[in-house]
Amino acid sequence: MPTSTRPNLTVSNRSPEGLKGLDPRLSRLRIDAERMQSDFDALSMIGSTGDGGVHRPALSAAHLEARAWFRERVRQAGLAVQVDSAGNHSARLECGLRAEAPVLLLGSHLDSVPHGGRFDGALGVVAALEILRTVQEAQSEGLPRLPVHLEAIDFTDEEGTLVGLLGSSAAAGRLTAEQLLAPRGGREALLEGLQRAGLQESGLLAARRDPSRLAGYLELHIEQGPRLLGAGAQIGVVRSIVGIVAYRLTFIGRADHAGTTPMADRLDAAQGASAFLLGVRQTVMADFPECVANVGRFEIEPGAFNIVPARATLSLEFRAAQPRALEHLEQVLLALAQGEAARFSLDLQVEPLGRHAPIQLSPAARAAVQSAAQALNVRTLALDSGAGHDAQMMAAVCPAGMLFVPSQGGASHAPREFTTWQDCVQGANVLLQAALRMAEAA
Amino acid sequence: MPTSTRPNLTVSNRSPEGLKGLDPRLSRLRIDAERMQSDFDALSMIGSTGDGGVHRPALSAAHLEARAWFRERVRQAGLAVQVDSAGNHSARLECGLRAEAPVLLLGSHLDSVPHGGRFDGALGVVAALEILRTVQEAQSEGLPRLPVHLEAIDFTDEEGTLVGLLGSSAAAGRLTAEQLLAPRGGREALLEGLQRAGLQESGLLAARRDPSRLAGYLELHIEQGPRLLGAGAQIGVVRSIVGIVAYRLTFIGRADHAGTTPMADRLDAAQGASAFLLGVRQTVMADFPECVANVGRFEIEPGAFNIVPARATLSLEFRAAQPRALEHLEQVLLALAQGEAARFSLDLQVEPLGRHAPIQLSPAARAAVQSAAQALNVRTLALDSGAGHDAQMMAAVCPAGMLFVPSQGGASHAPREFTTWQDCVQGANVLLQAALRMAEAA
Repeated sequence: MPTSTRPNLTVSNRSPEGLKGLDPRLSRLRIDAERMQSDFDALSMIGSTGDGGVHRPALSAAHLEARAWFRERVRQAGLAVQVDSAGNHSARLECGLRAEAPVLLLGSHLDSVPHGGRFDGALGVVAALEILRTVQEAQSEGLPRLPVHLEAIDFTDEEGTLVGLLGSSAAAGRLTAEQLLAPRGGREALLEGLQRAGLQESGLLAARRDPSRLAGYLELHIEQGPRLLGAGAQIGVVRSIVGIVAYRLTFIGRADHAGTTPMADRLDAAQGASAFLLGVRQTVMADFPECVANVGRFEIEPGAFNIVPARATLSLEFRAAQPRALEHLEQVLLALAQGEAARFSLDLQVEPLGRHAPIQLSPAARAAVQSAAQALNVRTLALDSGAGHDAQMMAAVCPAGMLFVPSQGGASHAPREFTTWQDCVQGANVLLQAALRMAEAA
Repeated sequence: MPTSTRPNLTVSNRSPEGLKGLDPRLSRLRIDAERMQSDFDALSMIGSTGDGGVHRPALSAAHLEARAWFRERVRQAGLAVQVDSAGNHSARLECGLRAEAPVLLLGSHLDSVPHGGRFDGALGVVAALEILRTVQEAQSEGLPRLPVHLEAIDFTDEEGTLVGLLGSSAAAGRLTAEQLLAPRGGREALLEGLQRAGLQESGLLAARRDPSRLAGYLELHIEQGPRLLGAGAQIGVVRSIVGIVAYRLTFIGRADHAGTTPMADRLDAAQGASAFLLGVRQTVMADFPECVANVGRFEIEPGAFNIVPARATLSLEFRAAQPRALEHLEQVLLALAQGEAARFSLDLQVEPLGRHAPIQLSPAARAAVQSAAQALNVRTLALDSGAGHDAQMMAAVCPAGMLFVPSQGGASHAPREFTTWQDCVQGANVLLQAALRMAEAA
């Protein structure tokens, strides 16, 4: 049995701790799987790429359509729509005992990477909405009121087409004017997106939520990696989220005629950029086995067959779970870029485009997820997230937790991203039960 | 003296041969340098990038504006405007002895590479127009009629933003429907450009000129390299034009989440593409010293910080003066691409995008340029062109020749491209005298 060799793997064969206080009517509560599937399937059609994937970059037409669809579904459920000045919008269920009760946030994001999968983010939002409907119905049938209100939230621009974790960092009061001046998707794309969505920069910077009104934040998400299936677990209890650093690196040479300029006289920017791109992978694999790095864009200017590349601009991102590893990797990669630029007699322009330190998730939230999974007899695995999530921003202002469901083949950010519907439903039920446990502890 | 060690360098200190027949009124004819400069400066403002360069990709708004300007200048000179179904347009001077006399074409192109220089192509067109005005004026003052009519032509899309040598290959009857289906700038860009210009594909394929009506073609162009200045020569007499082969190469891997996918599990298309890009330069410098190659575009899909590159598409171009070297280099570079794709477990898609064989220019045209330069006491250098030119297409249907003027610093396809005005004027006068010599021989 893999259990015996994996200390983090927990099978729910013991009576869970801390459950004594949960009302049996609450512990029996389950979401409506068919209703959630109807939502999920409708959402998957918006920005569909026809191959199982979706293309909903933040504040694109397809993303705005998905946002409108979400608000309409909230209204159809008889829930209040709440929109903040960063474009984060939520379904609100006033299910607390007292009007001034704090709110427990459940959510994720509706934007996708370009040509991404239909589960990433979307599952967490439809599950959160479904949980509000489930509690609302149960309360109308006599379920007691909770110590908290519930809110199902969709955060703006999680994926970083524009800024990354934009809505959650705004809500956490962590967004700065500097970030908006040099966003990783480019200043122009940000301004165009905000205009399309009717948002203002001043609004982004003023969207901070009062932490004293927040009971916590829980997010259901696909794992986007192979570890849950490898361990035979159905729920990942997330301990930490990796730190991420992003840079734009521009290698600068000289435009020349590609027919008449001798090879030895060229200052070809793409040579240095290519050598760096190869070196990033070699360096990480050889010296930083616990880290990852990616060059996801490579743009040449002027960009013609017959012109020697004058500028090659790379989008670099790297991640580590430990702060010291992240810093060390940063030093090594920047030195590598300088070295390759020098080797090809190029100039180098270095623009930092974002930095998120590794964070630990709330022990209380982890315990609530663990307890919920045990109550539902689901095998769990404690793990660290190699992807960034809105939870890392919310962790700065309230107890934040995350749970993962398995990704088939470990695939994500691609149309073949897939989680079985059974795992999605199970994840939503664990989220529901974890939320009720966090609510009771609030 | 460099002369003694350079057999190709000719100093005009001898009485030129073959000049006995030229009417002294013709041999004294010179262009109006101020009028030509006024044209050149006005043209340089159209699509100006503000740093001495111009941005007039074929059939872009700026290029269409330059074309309209040219036709207006032709009309102002009292010359007839002639437009063919490939968008080639010309000033026509009916200066021949007989109405049915053949026509001697003088010209070049008004389009530029993206963010290119203001001399490339433009100089040849304004010089051709100026020569027609000069002959027109001289004839009104009694200069005898010539054995040919004269035409100053601007060829469509020489640079290859869309197809490359589009107008001249159409005029030479060398354009095929296949080329239009897979143009190197992409099919969509071609169709959009044609629509903007009011052109049809059927028209492009029907623009062939009757070779029996053509007395020849002469083109004045900047050298775009350092050889003339290096040899102390003011006029380059072009012997041949290199062959050019272009390919689009797509390395195909798999999109994955760049945070959660282990480095070793990635199929990163940009790795193979970068290794190929570096290898191209190394291969050419080590094994093909007489050839050049360039990767001028590098595009990653989906193109996000946090997605492992699924596709990397490169624009490759290479050139050689000898047909066998061109073929051998092609084999070696395609094998290199296959090898790098295999090394990174990628698929490779290979699309040929154009092939122009090396060509020899007309000995008669070369002799006319040489004789004209000698008559003007200008030092010449015989050389091969490393750049493609419309002359290589016209050479298939009539005696075609080219002359170069020096490029300061050898720079071209960039805003710093520069030729002294004195060299431009001298080039135009040599072109005029060479044209008169070709006319007399027609």
